[in-house]
Amino acid sequence: MKILLHISFLGTAYAGYQIQKDQNTVQKVLCDGAERVFGFPCDITGCSRTDSGVHAKHFCATVTEKGKNTLHTSIPTERIPLAFGSVLPSDVSVFDAEEVSEDFHPRYDVLEKEYEYRIYNRRTRDPFSADRSWHYPKRIDDEALSKMRRAAKQLVGRHDFAAYMASGSSVEDTVREVKAAEVTREGDFIVFRVSADGFLYNMVRIFTGTLIGVAEGKISPEEISSITESKDRSRAGVTAPAAGLYLNKVTYKK
Amino acid sequence: MKILLHISFLGTAYAGYQIQKDQNTVQKVLCDGAERVFGFPCDITGCSRTDSGVHAKHFCATVTEKGKNTLHTSIPTERIPLAFGSVLPSDVSVFDAEEVSEDFHPRYDVLEKEYEYRIYNRRTRDPFSADRSWHYPKRIDDEALSKMRRAAKQLVGRHDFAAYMASGSSVEDTVREVKAAEVTREGDFIVFRVSADGFLYNMVRIFTGTLIGVAEGKISPEEISSITESKDRSRAGVTAPAAGLYLNKVTYKK
Repeated sequence: MKILLHISFLGTAYAGYQIQKDQNTVQKVLCDGAERVFGFPCDITGCSRTDSGVHAKHFCATVTEKGKNTLHTSIPTERIPLAFGSVLPSDVSVFDAEEVSEDFHPRYDVLEKEYEYRIYNRRTRDPFSADRSWHYPKRIDDEALSKMRRAAKQLVGRHDFAAYMASGSSVEDTVREVKAAEVTREGDFIVFRVSADGFLYNMVRIFTGTLIGVAEGKISPEEISSITESKDRSRAGVTAPAAGLYLNKVTYKK
Repeated sequence: MKILLHISFLGTAYAGYQIQKDQNTVQKVLCDGAERVFGFPCDITGCSRTDSGVHAKHFCATVTEKGKNTLHTSIPTERIPLAFGSVLPSDVSVFDAEEVSEDFHPRYDVLEKEYEYRIYNRRTRDPFSADRSWHYPKRIDDEALSKMRRAAKQLVGRHDFAAYMASGSSVEDTVREVKAAEVTREGDFIVFRVSADGFLYNMVRIFTGTLIGVAEGKISPEEISSITESKDRSRAGVTAPAAGLYLNKVTYKK
Protein backbone atom coordinates (compact mmCIF):
# COMPACT_ATOMS: atom_id res chain seq x y z
CA MET A 1 0.00 0.00 0.00
CA LYS A 2 0.92 3.61 -0.64
CA ILE A 3 -1.06 6.72 0.22
CA LEU A 4 -1.96 9.16 -2.55
CA LEU A 5 -2.41 12.68 -1.17
CA HIS A 6 -4.63 15.24 -2.89
CA ILE A 7 -3.05 18.60 -2.15
CA SER A 8 -3.61 22.29 -2.79
CA PHE A 9 -1.03 24.99 -2.24
CA LEU A 10 -0.46 28.69 -2.65
CA GLY A 11 2.95 28.80 -4.32
CA THR A 12 3.93 32.39 -3.45
CA ALA A 13 6.26 31.53 -0.56
CA TYR A 14 7.89 28.52 -2.24
CA ALA A 15 10.81 27.97 -4.59
CA GLY A 16 8.56 25.58 -6.51
CA TYR A 17 7.50 22.05 -5.68
CA GLN A 18 10.73 20.11 -5.81
CA ILE A 19 13.18 19.84 -2.91
CA GLN A 20 16.30 21.97 -3.38
CA LYS A 21 19.09 22.59 -0.92
CA ASP A 22 18.54 25.61 1.37
CA GLN A 23 15.20 26.47 -0.26
CA ASN A 24 11.67 26.36 1.06
CA THR A 25 9.74 24.02 -1.24
CA VAL A 26 6.34 22.35 -1.15
CA GLN A 27 7.92 18.88 -1.27
CA LYS A 28 10.07 19.70 1.76
CA VAL A 29 7.07 20.94 3.74
CA LEU A 30 5.15 17.75 2.83
CA CYS A 31 8.14 15.54 3.77
CA ASP A 32 8.48 17.22 7.14
CA GLY A 33 4.71 17.04 7.67
CA ALA A 34 4.56 13.35 6.75
CA GLU A 35 7.30 12.50 9.26
CA ARG A 36 5.29 14.23 11.99
CA VAL A 37 2.04 12.55 10.94
CA PHE A 38 3.40 8.99 10.56
CA GLY A 39 6.27 9.11 13.04
CA PHE A 40 9.04 8.01 10.66
CA PRO A 41 10.94 9.60 7.74
CA CYS A 42 8.98 9.52 4.47
CA ASP A 43 9.46 10.02 0.75
CA ILE A 44 7.04 12.26 -1.12
CA THR A 45 6.72 11.70 -4.88
CA GLY A 46 4.79 14.38 -6.76
CA CYS A 47 2.80 14.33 -10.01
CA SER A 48 4.94 17.06 -11.55
CA ARG A 49 7.40 19.85 -10.84
CA THR A 50 6.07 23.35 -10.53
CA ASP A 51 8.02 26.60 -10.80
CA SER A 52 8.58 29.09 -8.05
CA GLY A 53 5.38 31.07 -7.40
CA VAL A 54 3.09 28.67 -9.31
CA HIS A 55 -0.03 27.48 -7.44
CA ALA A 56 -2.01 24.24 -7.33
CA LYS A 57 -5.69 23.79 -6.67
CA HIS A 58 -5.13 20.04 -7.11
CA PHE A 59 -1.71 18.46 -6.94
CA CYS A 60 -1.11 14.76 -6.25
CA ALA A 61 1.74 13.05 -4.43
CA THR A 62 2.34 9.65 -2.88
CA VAL A 63 3.81 9.21 0.56
CA THR A 64 5.92 6.14 1.36
CA GLU A 65 8.34 5.18 4.10
CA LYS A 66 11.78 6.57 3.31
CA GLY A 67 13.70 4.27 0.93
CA LYS A 68 10.76 1.86 0.58
CA ASN A 69 7.92 1.64 -1.89
CA THR A 70 5.26 1.12 0.75
CA LEU A 71 3.77 2.66 3.86
CA HIS A 72 2.39 0.98 6.97
CA THR A 73 0.35 3.07 9.36
CA SER A 74 -2.40 2.60 11.90
CA ILE A 75 -3.94 5.95 10.97
CA PRO A 76 -7.22 5.36 9.11
CA THR A 77 -6.89 6.80 5.57
CA GLU A 78 -9.91 9.09 5.97
CA ARG A 79 -8.22 10.79 8.94
CA ILE A 80 -4.95 11.52 7.12
CA PRO A 81 -6.07 14.91 5.64
CA LEU A 82 -6.91 16.30 9.08
CA ALA A 83 -3.68 14.88 10.53
CA PHE A 84 -1.71 16.80 7.89
CA GLY A 85 -3.91 19.83 8.57
CA SER A 86 -2.54 20.11 12.08
CA VAL A 87 1.14 20.05 10.99
CA LEU A 88 1.25 21.84 7.61
CA PRO A 89 1.53 25.63 7.19
CA SER A 90 -1.61 27.50 6.14
CA ASP A 91 -0.54 27.75 2.48
CA VAL A 92 -0.43 23.97 1.91
CA SER A 93 -3.39 21.65 2.51
CA VAL A 94 -4.06 17.93 2.06
CA PHE A 95 -7.77 17.84 1.22
CA ASP A 96 -8.10 14.13 0.47
CA ALA A 97 -6.15 10.88 0.79
CA GLU A 98 -6.62 7.42 -0.70
CA GLU A 99 -4.89 4.06 -0.73
CA VAL A 100 -3.16 3.08 -3.97
CA SER A 101 -1.25 -0.06 -4.91
CA GLU A 102 2.53 -0.33 -4.85
CA ASP A 103 2.76 -0.27 -8.65
CA PHE A 104 1.01 3.11 -8.83
CA HIS A 105 3.26 6.01 -9.84
CA PRO A 106 2.01 9.59 -9.30
CA ARG A 107 3.89 10.94 -12.33
CA TYR A 108 3.98 8.11 -14.87
CA ASP A 109 0.33 7.13 -14.37
CA VAL A 110 -1.07 10.58 -15.11
CA LEU A 111 -3.70 10.42 -17.87
CA GLU A 112 -4.38 14.15 -18.06
CA LYS A 113 -3.60 17.39 -16.29
CA GLU A 114 -5.51 20.65 -16.44
CA TYR A 115 -3.88 24.03 -15.89
CA GLU A 116 -5.53 27.41 -15.47
CA TYR A 117 -3.90 30.76 -16.16
CA ARG A 118 -5.50 33.85 -14.60
CA ILE A 119 -5.07 37.33 -16.10
CA TYR A 120 -6.37 40.26 -14.06
CA ASN A 121 -7.56 42.73 -16.66
CA ARG A 122 -8.26 46.08 -15.03
CA ARG A 123 -6.33 49.30 -15.27
CA THR A 124 -5.48 49.36 -11.56
CA ARG A 125 -4.09 46.59 -9.36
CA ASP A 126 -6.26 44.28 -7.24
CA PRO A 127 -4.86 43.61 -3.74
CA PHE A 128 -6.70 40.26 -3.63
CA SER A 129 -5.08 39.06 -6.86
CA ALA A 130 -1.51 40.16 -6.18
CA ASP A 131 0.79 37.10 -6.52
CA ARG A 132 -2.26 35.13 -7.76
CA SER A 133 -2.65 36.45 -11.29
CA TRP A 134 -0.93 38.40 -14.06
CA HIS A 135 -2.00 42.01 -13.85
CA TYR A 136 -2.47 43.00 -17.49
CA PRO A 137 -3.84 46.58 -17.38
CA LYS A 138 -4.63 47.14 -21.08
CA ARG A 139 -8.30 46.36 -21.76
CA ILE A 140 -8.91 43.05 -23.56
CA ASP A 141 -12.18 43.78 -25.37
CA ASP A 142 -14.60 41.20 -26.78
CA GLU A 143 -12.98 41.30 -30.21
CA ALA A 144 -9.54 40.56 -28.75
CA LEU A 145 -11.08 37.83 -26.58
CA SER A 146 -12.66 36.24 -29.61
CA LYS A 147 -9.26 36.22 -31.35
CA MET A 148 -7.67 34.60 -28.30
CA ARG A 149 -10.35 31.90 -28.46
CA ARG A 150 -9.69 31.21 -32.14
CA ALA A 151 -5.98 30.99 -31.39
CA ALA A 152 -6.49 28.65 -28.41
CA LYS A 153 -8.56 26.27 -30.56
CA GLN A 154 -5.60 25.74 -32.85
CA LEU A 155 -3.52 24.43 -29.96
CA VAL A 156 -5.88 21.49 -29.50
CA GLY A 157 -4.68 18.15 -30.88
CA ARG A 158 -1.54 16.04 -31.02
CA HIS A 159 1.34 18.32 -32.01
CA ASP A 160 5.02 18.87 -31.54
CA PHE A 161 4.93 21.80 -29.13
CA ALA A 162 8.67 22.60 -29.18
CA ALA A 163 7.87 26.21 -30.11
CA TYR A 164 6.22 26.62 -26.69
CA MET A 165 8.99 25.08 -24.57
CA ALA A 166 11.46 27.15 -22.54
CA SER A 167 14.86 27.08 -24.21
CA GLY A 168 17.37 25.04 -22.27
CA SER A 169 14.94 22.23 -21.53
CA SER A 170 16.43 18.82 -22.26
CA VAL A 171 13.24 16.88 -23.04
CA GLU A 172 13.62 14.91 -26.27
CA ASP A 173 10.04 14.03 -27.13
CA THR A 174 8.18 17.31 -27.47
CA VAL A 175 4.95 15.84 -28.87
CA ARG A 176 1.94 16.22 -26.54
CA GLU A 177 -1.79 15.94 -26.96
CA VAL A 178 -3.76 19.02 -25.92
CA LYS A 179 -7.30 17.83 -25.17
CA ALA A 180 -8.98 21.20 -24.57
CA ALA A 181 -7.99 24.88 -24.56
CA GLU A 182 -10.52 27.55 -23.61
CA VAL A 183 -10.44 31.27 -22.92
CA THR A 184 -13.24 32.83 -20.86
CA ARG A 185 -13.97 36.18 -19.25
CA GLU A 186 -14.87 35.79 -15.58
CA GLY A 187 -15.59 39.19 -14.08
CA ASP A 188 -12.35 41.17 -14.22
CA PHE A 189 -10.34 38.09 -15.16
CA ILE A 190 -9.46 36.49 -18.46
CA VAL A 191 -9.02 32.79 -17.70
CA PHE A 192 -7.20 30.34 -19.97
CA ARG A 193 -7.78 26.65 -19.19
CA VAL A 194 -5.86 23.94 -20.97
CA SER A 195 -5.71 20.17 -20.49
CA ALA A 196 -3.23 17.73 -22.02
CA ASP A 197 -1.64 14.33 -21.50
CA GLY A 198 1.51 16.18 -20.51
CA PHE A 199 3.15 19.59 -20.66
CA LEU A 200 6.59 20.82 -21.69
CA TYR A 201 8.59 23.18 -19.49
CA ASN A 202 6.80 26.58 -19.32
CA MET A 203 4.33 25.45 -21.99
CA VAL A 204 1.20 26.96 -20.40
CA ARG A 205 2.97 30.23 -19.61
CA ILE A 206 4.25 30.48 -23.22
CA PHE A 207 0.79 29.57 -24.56
CA THR A 208 -0.58 32.42 -22.44
CA GLY A 209 2.06 34.89 -23.61
CA THR A 210 1.25 33.89 -27.19
CA LEU A 211 -2.48 34.45 -26.61
CA ILE A 212 -1.67 37.91 -25.24
CA GLY A 213 0.36 38.49 -28.42
CA VAL A 214 -2.81 37.62 -30.31
CA ALA A 215 -4.91 39.99 -28.15
CA GLU A 216 -2.39 42.76 -28.90
CA GLY A 217 -2.57 42.11 -32.65
CA LYS A 218 1.11 41.09 -32.83
CA ILE A 219 0.18 37.53 -33.81
CA SER A 220 -2.86 36.63 -35.88
CA PRO A 221 -5.04 33.75 -34.62
CA GLU A 222 -4.51 31.94 -37.93
CA GLU A 223 -0.72 32.11 -37.46
CA ILE A 224 -0.76 29.73 -34.48
CA SER A 225 -0.59 26.53 -36.55
CA SER A 226 2.43 27.77 -38.47
CA ILE A 227 4.15 28.85 -35.21
CA THR A 228 3.55 25.33 -33.88
CA GLU A 229 4.88 23.76 -37.07
CA SER A 230 7.98 25.99 -37.04
CA LYS A 231 9.08 24.56 -33.64
CA ASP A 232 10.71 27.97 -33.26
CA ARG A 233 10.47 29.38 -29.70
CA SER A 234 11.22 32.88 -30.95
CA ARG A 235 8.00 32.97 -32.99
CA ALA A 236 5.75 32.31 -29.97
CA GLY A 237 4.90 34.98 -27.39
CA VAL A 238 6.50 35.92 -24.08
CA THR A 239 6.52 33.63 -21.04
CA ALA A 240 3.67 34.85 -18.82
CA PRO A 241 4.59 35.35 -15.12
CA ALA A 242 4.47 32.35 -12.78
CA ALA A 243 2.00 33.94 -10.35
CA GLY A 244 -1.00 33.51 -12.71
CA LEU A 245 -0.55 29.75 -13.16
CA TYR A 246 -2.53 27.06 -11.33
CA LEU A 247 -2.41 23.30 -11.65
CA ASN A 248 -6.16 22.67 -11.54
CA LYS A 249 -6.67 18.95 -11.79
CA VAL A 250 -4.78 15.68 -12.17
CA THR A 251 -6.53 12.64 -13.65
CA TYR A 252 -5.04 9.13 -13.47
CA LYS A 253 -5.34 6.09 -15.69
CA LYS A 254 -7.73 3.64 -14.04
CA MET B 1 -11.80 70.77 -3.95
CA LYS B 2 -10.93 67.52 -2.23
CA ILE B 3 -10.13 64.19 -3.81
CA LEU B 4 -12.19 61.14 -2.85
CA LEU B 5 -10.19 57.94 -3.28
CA HIS B 6 -11.88 54.59 -3.93
CA ILE B 7 -9.63 52.00 -2.35
CA SER B 8 -9.36 48.24 -1.88
CA PHE B 9 -7.04 46.53 0.54
CA LEU B 10 -6.09 43.13 1.87
CA GLY B 11 -6.07 43.70 5.62
CA THR B 12 -3.87 40.75 6.66
CA ALA B 13 -0.66 42.73 7.13
CA TYR B 14 -2.27 45.73 8.83
CA ALA B 15 -3.23 46.67 12.38
CA GLY B 16 -6.51 47.96 10.94
CA TYR B 17 -7.25 51.14 9.02
CA GLN B 18 -6.54 53.86 11.53
CA ILE B 19 -3.08 55.31 12.22
CA GLN B 20 -1.57 54.09 15.49
CA LYS B 21 1.89 54.73 16.82
CA ASP B 22 4.49 52.13 15.77
CA GLN B 23 1.94 50.09 13.82
CA ASN B 24 1.56 49.41 10.14
CA THR B 25 -1.90 50.69 9.18
CA VAL B 26 -3.73 51.31 5.91
CA GLN B 27 -4.15 55.01 6.73
CA LYS B 28 -0.40 55.39 7.27
CA VAL B 29 0.38 53.69 3.97
CA LEU B 30 -2.11 56.00 2.19
CA CYS B 31 -0.68 59.10 3.94
CA ASP B 32 2.86 58.19 2.90
CA GLY B 33 1.67 57.37 -0.62
CA ALA B 34 -0.25 60.66 -0.95
CA GLU B 35 2.82 62.66 0.06
CA ARG B 36 4.83 60.95 -2.68
CA VAL B 37 2.06 61.42 -5.25
CA PHE B 38 1.30 65.09 -4.52
CA GLY B 39 4.67 66.22 -3.22
CA PHE B 40 3.48 67.65 0.12
CA PRO B 41 2.23 66.17 3.42
CA CYS B 42 -1.44 65.13 3.28
CA ASP B 43 -4.31 64.16 5.56
CA ILE B 44 -6.29 61.03 4.77
CA THR B 45 -9.82 60.81 6.19
CA GLY B 46 -11.50 57.41 5.89
CA CYS B 47 -15.14 56.33 5.72
CA SER B 48 -14.80 54.10 8.77
CA ARG B 49 -12.35 52.29 11.01
CA THR B 50 -11.64 48.67 10.34
CA ASP B 51 -10.13 46.12 12.71
CA SER B 52 -6.81 44.40 12.30
CA GLY B 53 -7.05 41.73 9.59
CA VAL B 54 -10.34 43.01 8.10
CA HIS B 55 -10.37 43.57 4.32
CA ALA B 56 -12.04 46.08 2.01
CA LYS B 57 -13.15 45.57 -1.57
CA HIS B 58 -14.35 49.17 -1.52
CA PHE B 59 -13.22 51.69 1.08
CA CYS B 60 -13.42 55.45 0.64
CA ALA B 61 -11.15 58.20 1.92
CA THR B 62 -10.52 61.84 1.11
CA VAL B 63 -7.07 63.28 0.64
CA THR B 64 -6.38 66.90 1.54
CA GLU B 65 -3.27 68.97 2.15
CA LYS B 66 -2.11 68.52 5.75
CA GLY B 67 -4.00 70.81 8.12
CA LYS B 68 -6.24 72.19 5.36
CA ASN B 69 -9.62 71.15 4.05
CA THR B 70 -8.62 71.33 0.40
CA LEU B 71 -6.14 69.99 -2.10
CA HIS B 72 -4.50 71.73 -5.05
CA THR B 73 -2.71 69.60 -7.59
CA SER B 74 -1.82 69.70 -11.26
CA ILE B 75 -2.30 65.92 -11.56
CA PRO B 76 -5.46 65.22 -13.59
CA THR B 77 -7.95 63.36 -11.37
CA GLU B 78 -8.23 60.41 -13.76
CA ARG B 79 -4.48 59.81 -13.43
CA ILE B 80 -4.45 59.74 -9.63
CA PRO B 81 -5.23 55.97 -9.29
CA LEU B 82 -2.22 55.02 -11.44
CA ALA B 83 -0.03 57.52 -9.59
CA PHE B 84 -0.92 55.81 -6.30
CA GLY B 85 -0.40 52.44 -8.00
CA SER B 86 3.27 53.18 -8.45
CA VAL B 87 3.87 54.10 -4.78
CA LEU B 88 1.52 51.86 -2.75
CA PRO B 89 2.35 48.29 -1.65
CA SER B 90 0.65 45.45 -3.53
CA ASP B 91 -1.97 44.89 -0.81
CA VAL B 92 -3.50 48.39 -1.09
CA SER B 93 -4.89 49.84 -4.32
CA VAL B 94 -6.61 53.08 -5.33
CA PHE B 95 -8.92 51.95 -8.14
CA ASP B 96 -10.76 55.23 -8.70
CA ALA B 97 -10.60 58.90 -7.74
CA GLU B 98 -13.08 61.77 -8.03
CA GLU B 99 -13.33 65.42 -7.11
CA VAL B 100 -15.68 66.29 -4.23
CA SER B 101 -16.57 69.60 -2.69
CA GLU B 102 -15.01 70.96 0.50
CA ASP B 103 -18.16 70.32 2.52
CA PHE B 104 -18.10 66.61 1.68
CA HIS B 105 -17.18 64.33 4.61
CA PRO B 106 -16.22 60.71 3.88
CA ARG B 107 -17.65 59.43 7.18
CA TYR B 108 -20.61 61.70 7.99
CA ASP B 109 -21.99 61.67 4.44
CA VAL B 110 -22.24 57.88 4.19
CA LEU B 111 -25.75 56.79 3.20
CA GLU B 112 -25.17 53.06 3.35
CA LYS B 113 -22.37 50.53 3.73
CA GLU B 114 -22.38 46.89 2.72
CA TYR B 115 -20.26 44.26 4.43
CA GLU B 116 -19.63 40.69 3.39
CA TYR B 117 -18.59 37.87 5.71
CA ARG B 118 -17.05 34.77 4.11
CA ILE B 119 -17.16 31.36 5.80
CA TYR B 120 -15.11 28.57 4.20
CA ASN B 121 -17.15 25.45 4.85
CA ARG B 122 -15.08 22.39 4.05
CA ARG B 123 -13.56 19.86 6.40
CA THR B 124 -10.00 20.68 5.37
CA ARG B 125 -8.30 24.07 5.04
CA ASP B 126 -8.05 25.98 1.77
CA PRO B 127 -4.62 27.62 1.17
CA PHE B 128 -6.25 30.28 -1.04
CA SER B 129 -8.70 31.31 1.68
CA ALA B 130 -6.32 31.41 4.63
CA ASP B 131 -6.52 34.90 6.24
CA ARG B 132 -9.42 35.67 3.86
CA SER B 133 -12.27 33.71 5.44
CA TRP B 134 -13.37 31.89 8.58
CA HIS B 135 -12.61 28.21 8.17
CA TYR B 136 -15.65 26.51 9.67
CA PRO B 137 -15.11 22.77 9.06
CA LYS B 138 -18.48 21.36 10.24
CA ARG B 139 -20.82 20.95 7.27
CA ILE B 140 -23.58 23.58 7.03
CA ASP B 141 -26.31 21.65 5.20
CA ASP B 142 -29.26 23.15 3.34
CA GLU B 143 -31.52 22.91 6.39
CA ALA B 144 -29.03 24.85 8.52
CA LEU B 145 -28.58 27.36 5.70
CA SER B 146 -32.31 27.90 5.51
CA LYS B 147 -32.38 28.57 9.26
CA MET B 148 -29.54 31.09 8.90
CA ARG B 149 -31.58 32.85 6.20
CA ARG B 150 -34.68 33.04 8.40
CA ALA B 151 -32.54 34.43 11.21
CA ALA B 152 -30.84 37.00 8.95
CA LYS B 153 -34.23 38.28 7.78
CA GLN B 154 -35.11 39.23 11.35
CA LEU B 155 -32.11 41.56 11.52
CA VAL B 156 -33.56 43.74 8.77
CA GLY B 157 -35.19 46.99 9.89
CA ARG B 158 -34.60 49.84 12.30
CA HIS B 159 -33.58 48.33 15.64
CA ASP B 160 -31.46 48.95 18.69
CA PHE B 161 -28.60 46.57 17.96
CA ALA B 162 -26.84 46.88 21.34
CA ALA B 163 -26.95 43.07 21.72
CA TYR B 164 -24.58 42.83 18.74
CA MET B 165 -22.04 45.42 19.85
CA ALA B 166 -18.65 44.53 21.36
CA SER B 167 -18.68 45.27 25.08
CA GLY B 168 -16.51 48.23 25.95
CA SER B 169 -17.73 50.33 23.04
CA SER B 170 -18.68 53.84 24.08
CA VAL B 171 -21.24 54.63 21.36
CA GLU B 172 -24.43 56.05 22.90
CA ASP B 173 -26.93 55.71 20.08
CA THR B 174 -27.08 52.00 19.20
CA VAL B 175 -30.05 52.26 16.83
CA ARG B 176 -29.22 51.44 13.20
CA GLU B 177 -31.23 50.56 10.13
CA VAL B 178 -30.29 47.29 8.47
CA LYS B 179 -31.44 47.54 4.85
CA ALA B 180 -30.70 43.99 3.70
CA ALA B 181 -29.23 40.80 5.19
CA GLU B 182 -28.71 37.73 3.01
CA VAL B 183 -27.02 34.37 3.39
CA THR B 184 -25.97 32.46 0.26
CA ARG B 185 -23.95 29.38 -0.56
CA GLU B 186 -21.27 30.11 -3.17
CA GLY B 187 -19.32 26.95 -3.91
CA ASP B 188 -17.51 25.98 -0.70
CA PHE B 189 -18.35 29.31 0.93
CA ILE B 190 -21.28 30.50 2.99
CA VAL B 191 -21.49 34.24 2.38
CA PHE B 192 -23.38 36.67 4.61
CA ARG B 193 -24.00 40.13 3.09
CA VAL B 194 -25.51 42.92 5.14
CA SER B 195 -26.09 46.59 4.40
CA ALA B 196 -27.06 49.33 6.84
CA ASP B 197 -26.91 53.07 7.37
CA GLY B 198 -24.22 52.40 9.95
CA PHE B 199 -22.68 49.62 12.01
CA LEU B 200 -21.77 49.26 15.67
CA TYR B 201 -18.36 47.99 16.74
CA ASN B 202 -17.99 44.31 15.71
CA MET B 203 -21.67 44.20 14.66
CA VAL B 204 -21.19 42.17 11.46
CA ARG B 205 -18.84 39.73 13.18
CA ILE B 206 -21.32 39.23 16.04
CA PHE B 207 -24.20 38.87 13.54
CA THR B 208 -22.13 36.16 11.84
CA GLY B 209 -21.33 34.37 15.10
CA THR B 210 -25.04 34.47 15.94
CA LEU B 211 -25.97 32.99 12.55
CA ILE B 212 -23.44 30.20 13.18
CA GLY B 213 -25.16 29.67 16.55
CA VAL B 214 -28.39 29.26 14.57
CA ALA B 215 -26.73 26.79 12.14
CA GLU B 216 -25.53 24.77 15.13
CA GLY B 217 -29.02 24.70 16.67
CA LYS B 218 -27.92 26.65 19.75
CA ILE B 219 -30.14 29.59 18.80
CA SER B 220 -33.48 29.21 17.00
CA PRO B 221 -34.13 31.54 14.04
CA GLU B 222 -37.26 32.82 15.76
CA GLU B 223 -35.22 33.81 18.83
CA ILE B 224 -33.35 36.56 16.96
CA SER B 225 -35.98 39.26 17.55
CA SER B 226 -36.01 38.61 21.27
CA ILE B 227 -32.17 38.65 21.39
CA THR B 228 -32.27 42.02 19.63
CA GLU B 229 -34.90 43.33 22.04
CA SER B 230 -32.95 42.11 25.08
CA LYS B 231 -29.96 44.36 24.15
CA ASP B 232 -27.97 41.67 25.98
CA ARG B 233 -24.62 40.90 24.30
CA SER B 234 -24.38 37.58 26.16
CA ARG B 235 -27.46 36.22 24.36
CA ALA B 236 -26.00 36.75 20.87
CA GLY B 237 -23.36 34.45 19.36
CA VAL B 238 -19.58 34.58 19.33
CA THR B 239 -17.60 37.28 17.50
CA ALA B 240 -16.54 35.70 14.21
CA PRO B 241 -12.83 36.13 13.32
CA ALA B 242 -11.72 39.34 11.59
CA ALA B 243 -10.20 37.54 8.57
CA GLY B 244 -13.62 36.70 7.05
CA LEU B 245 -14.89 40.29 6.99
CA TYR B 246 -14.90 42.59 3.94
CA LEU B 247 -16.20 46.11 3.54
CA ASN B 248 -17.85 45.66 0.14
CA LYS B 249 -19.35 48.97 -0.80
CA VAL B 250 -19.81 52.53 0.46
CA THR B 251 -22.68 54.63 -0.87
CA TYR B 252 -22.89 58.41 -0.29
CA LYS B 253 -25.80 60.81 -0.01
CA LYS B 254 -26.11 62.74 -3.25
